[in-house]
Amino acid sequence: MPPAAAEPLTPERILETTEEVLRRFGPTKATVVDVARALGVSHGSVYRHFPSKAALREAVTDRWLAKSVVRLDEIASAAGGSAPSKLEAWLEALFEAKRHKAGDDPELFATYTVLLAESSGVVDQHLNQLIDQLGRIIAEGVEAGSLSAPDVPAAARAVFDATGRFHDPQYAAEWLKPTITTEFEAVTALVIRGLRA
Amino acid sequence: MPPAAAEPLTPERILETTEEVLRRFGPTKATVVDVARALGVSHGSVYRHFPSKAALREAVTDRWLAKSVVRLDEIASAAGGSAPSKLEAWLEALFEAKRHKAGDDPELFATYTVLLAESSGVVDQHLNQLIDQLGRIIAEGVEAGSLSAPDVPAAARAVFDATGRFHDPQYAAEWLKPTITTEFEAVTALVIRGLRA
Repeated sequence: MPPAAAEPLTPERILETTEEVLRRFGPTKATVVDVARALGVSHGSVYRHFPSKAALREAVTDRWLAKSVVRLDEIASAAGGSAPSKLEAWLEALFEAKRHKAGDDPELFATYTVLLAESSGVVDQHLNQLIDQLGRIIAEGVEAGSLSAPDVPAAARAVFDATGRFHDPQYAAEWLKPTITTEFEAVTALVIRGLRA
Repeated sequence: MPPAAAEPLTPERILETTEEVLRRFGPTKATVVDVARALGVSHGSVYRHFPSKAALREAVTDRWLAKSVVRLDEIASAAGGSAPSKLEAWLEALFEAKRHKAGDDPELFATYTVLLAESSGVVDQHLNQLIDQLGRIIAEGVEAGSLSAPDVPAAARAVFDATGRFHDPQYAAEWLKPTITTEFEAVTALVIRGLRA
């Protein structure tokens, strides 16, 4: 990556470069100075946007997690379609997103696994966003009469917990097994059936 | 533990002592010689029952896993009682057993976590036993008309996967959270509802 100080130094450019630097040096060795050097700027310029190394690492983790949330939010917010089929599409999209992140670039996935462990606040916020989206789909189904849930947030949380095998990065190695799709479909069908009115 | 060579050297006595030795020295340091010394016998006497260190470690892991299976098998095999309430009792007993193992003796639990990672055959057999028990409960419910499952083994597997958060040792740290019982009950209720006829 050649230095390119002529472009304006936006937070997005810093985060993109941080990801590159993390990939290249690994999460234990990468420093803010490495990021600044790759951008062709002083480390002071980086600190102007991110006040500490921890803040920069949190921001890059947040950005990585946010990528899959956008697509999932589109499914949760789509007008039309029954809640049960939305729920199925949402769970499928979540599994696909996680599986791609793990499979397409295993090194970067391993790097982010290290970052996730140190940014529990960012992770909790991400998980809450996902559970909120599930809650919106379930609430819609309850209103339309296709789903039944006396306590929508609790039901959303239960669906998320019951499908953990297919989104918790702890299980990334299992996602390569040839039987995983069958297992995913069986759990998803069971869970959706459990919510039907 | 004083040497007590006078008692007959049964496999059960060797395994009991092996567990003690593992607890004391840790899974990386414990040797067959340590076990023999604690029993006051030659290591040849131990090898007469267990042909290798690996075989001894597998046998002690198997014994540890088998302890919870007996109680669960009693629930699965009990005459009378509806299948849905049996299913609930079985999932509760599994969670309780795992939680106790993790909480009552965390050092021994950590030791066995290391042993489990090296004995994938023993672990797979254990998981299959548990899934078989679930299958028997579900089959009973299908026959009685209280549960519905077109493919009983697949349904048993799905129930096991959906409740992984409450029996997979990867989640042991979560089992200490004050909200875990509520989360367990929500997932269990969802899964059982998903199987109801």
